[in-house]
Amino acid sequence: MGRIITLTTDFGENDYFVGAVKGVILSINPKVKIVDITHQLPTFNPISAAFTLKNFYNYFPAGTTHLAVVDPGVGGKRRPVLVQTEKYSFIGPDNGIFSWIGEPFKRIIHLNNSKYFLSPVSSTFQARDIFAPTAAYLSLGIEINQFGKPLEKIVKLEIPKVQFKKNKTIGEIIHVDNFGNLISNIRPENLKAGIRAIKIKGRKILKISQTFSRAPRNEILTYWGSAGFLEIGVNCGSAAQILKAKIGEKVEIVL
Amino acid sequence: MGRIITLTTDFGENDYFVGAVKGVILSINPKVKIVDITHQLPTFNPISAAFTLKNFYNYFPAGTTHLAVVDPGVGGKRRPVLVQTEKYSFIGPDNGIFSWIGEPFKRIIHLNNSKYFLSPVSSTFQARDIFAPTAAYLSLGIEINQFGKPLEKIVKLEIPKVQFKKNKTIGEIIHVDNFGNLISNIRPENLKAGIRAIKIKGRKILKISQTFSRAPRNEILTYWGSAGFLEIGVNCGSAAQILKAKIGEKVEIVL
Amino acid sequence: MGRIITLTTDFGENDYFVGAVKGVILSINPKVKIVDITHQLPTFNPISAAFTLKNFYNYFPAGTTHLAVVDPGVGGKRRPVLVQTEKYSFIGPDNGIFSWIGEPFKRIIHLNNSKYFLSPVSSTFQARDIFAPTAAYLSLGIEINQFGKPLEKIVKLEIPKVQFKKNKTIGEIIHVDNFGNLISNIRPENLKAGIRAIKIKGRKILKISQTFSRAPRNEILTYWGSAGFLEIGVNCGSAAQILKAKIGEKVEIVL
Repeated sequence: MGRIITLTTDFGENDYFVGAVKGVILSINPKVKIVDITHQLPTFNPISAAFTLKNFYNYFPAGTTHLAVVDPGVGGKRRPVLVQTEKYSFIGPDNGIFSWIGEPFKRIIHLNNSKYFLSPVSSTFQARDIFAPTAAYLSLGIEINQFGKPLEKIVKLEIPKVQFKKNKTIGEIIHVDNFGNLISNIRPENLKAGIRAIKIKGRKILKISQTFSRAPRNEILTYWGSAGFLEIGVNCGSAAQILKAKIGEKVEIVL
Repeated sequence: MGRIITLTTDFGENDYFVGAVKGVILSINPKVKIVDITHQLPTFNPISAAFTLKNFYNYFPAGTTHLAVVDPGVGGKRRPVLVQTEKYSFIGPDNGIFSWIGEPFKRIIHLNNSKYFLSPVSSTFQARDIFAPTAAYLSLGIEINQFGKPLEKIVKLEIPKVQFKKNKTIGEIIHVDNFGNLISNIRPENLKAGIRAIKIKGRKILKISQTFSRAPRNEILTYWGSAGFLEIGVNCGSAAQILKAKIGEKVEIVL
Repeated sequence: MGRIITLTTDFGENDYFVGAVKGVILSINPKVKIVDITHQLPTFNPISAAFTLKNFYNYFPAGTTHLAVVDPGVGGKRRPVLVQTEKYSFIGPDNGIFSWIGEPFKRIIHLNNSKYFLSPVSSTFQARDIFAPTAAYLSLGIEINQFGKPLEKIVKLEIPKVQFKKNKTIGEIIHVDNFGNLISNIRPENLKAGIRAIKIKGRKILKISQTFSRAPRNEILTYWGSAGFLEIGVNCGSAAQILKAKIGEKVEIVL
């Protein structure tokens, strides 16, 4: 049983939320290794959380538990869940944040055994009261079926689909990173034909670059990003700022 | 003797301050477990630090040391202190940040034994030069009286008092969280009578909700928050932004 | 061989970058202690990274590895390097961020042995693909010469030089901290003569203060900061905001 628990949340850093979650975990298992991924994901945005999880979870050693909480429906009907794959466990709200995990689920558990909850459970802070103790007890070796009833499936968020037209392929921006790079939903396999240009916000980019530094400073370029998608960036600048582009912005590949 | 040291500061994340504090601790005791709570509390605001500490400290295992530094009076007359309760130790400036700890103090020590300071002590960075080494030596088992002279009491910040009038109860906002939720100073025991409405910034809210998700999106609601106070929030939105409300804003309970 | 790896980056906290780097390290050496310094340094600014590193690295125990990545030239010609001093190892891009380490280098290695890289190496995320695995293998005791070819020297960024004129000494702001304090490049040894005044943005400050708290609230003051440079600050306020001063702003010492 792995002894690493990672934390991925939108709790921010001007509050006690992170502290309470860590305290609950360490009170149950003082030996576990807690690894902060981020507490500053965009609030109320499960797509952004799903994108983030997808891109880091499988770099961790087998046995790691990923606790992730971005939860627009806190206190609502969505279920607290534990999802297990061959190598990892995921704990959080069943609102789609576990959608893009790229391997089969072995088991899904609805966390409804209050024996492993903090008591009393508040209606607004399940991370402290349900997810943190579950992760900690799991790290102590509690058998997964103890935490609740098995489920058949989880809620799925679809990555917006790339559209294929006669002489163009249309994608969209699904994420903006810290440097202002715009990450689209376009993958290498979507672009088999020759490309004439890439269009975004009326700008035309003529080719896919290998790296940032080969482009002149402040020039807009496209490249295959480290998450495997086509990205639009600016060498030493922010494409999001320069193009005034946000999540949802269309990207056109002219064939 | 506990081997966890938590860190709660307003140092921000564009600087070397956090690194220096962690380095000093780990040089003295490489085996201690450092747990980041936050380094992004509002600067120069001891009330916010006191509120944060109060809400996470007692989730940690007995023996934990909480190092907390939000210090408008750095280099001034306020004393560096170590406060011990039955289960925890607290280290930081004596400016009120330890006011709302909810259990009796067993011992208070004025940290004035320079043997446990970094040398030389700078006039502006006591976290690195006094608090970090004290926490580290404490984790090694140094007896608490070694660090300085006992004190009778610490500086206290009062939580602003709820006012009781004939047909209304008046509280105020004492904290704003990452989601824009407004946390008031009103506790369940302040509200024994029937409530007609809750008023803030001219808005009237007719009842206390159980959870966020039962309210329509973007509607203002009130609920009992996870810190035990009445809060005003917006389902999937920011009450602080929508109401343009800040710390100090009045909240009226119409009876 | 030390078992602490510190992380200093400009990756921000709304992304998966930090998670991927930590996952890669822990997959190779699950026992290493990862210490976050910051992931929110100003982007694309090696001077700020060099200033930060200089001010915290030597508080850590001997044997610590400092992984630092602020990299305007990602994917370009600058080399990935490992720098060793008597007590520490530094891993990151050779773009000047290791310039202000205050002790001789014993060895410099160009990280070009792909045996210790993640495979395939992306063109945009060397922190995950080269620096993280190198730091992890180093912590396992791999001999430093295994990682690549020795180099004679690294790229150096100069701290802007203080200028000495007949009746004044001119420095400049090289860093702004979380509190809005302005850190100049002026050291005590630059100021041997009597000082008449310190001028910045048309304001005149008549003396160097011992501490913040001896100045009235909101008054501009100068003092010797904890990094060893002359700083301009405001008691309980932001000098950067009040003076509208940024990195590069001139500071005049009238003799």
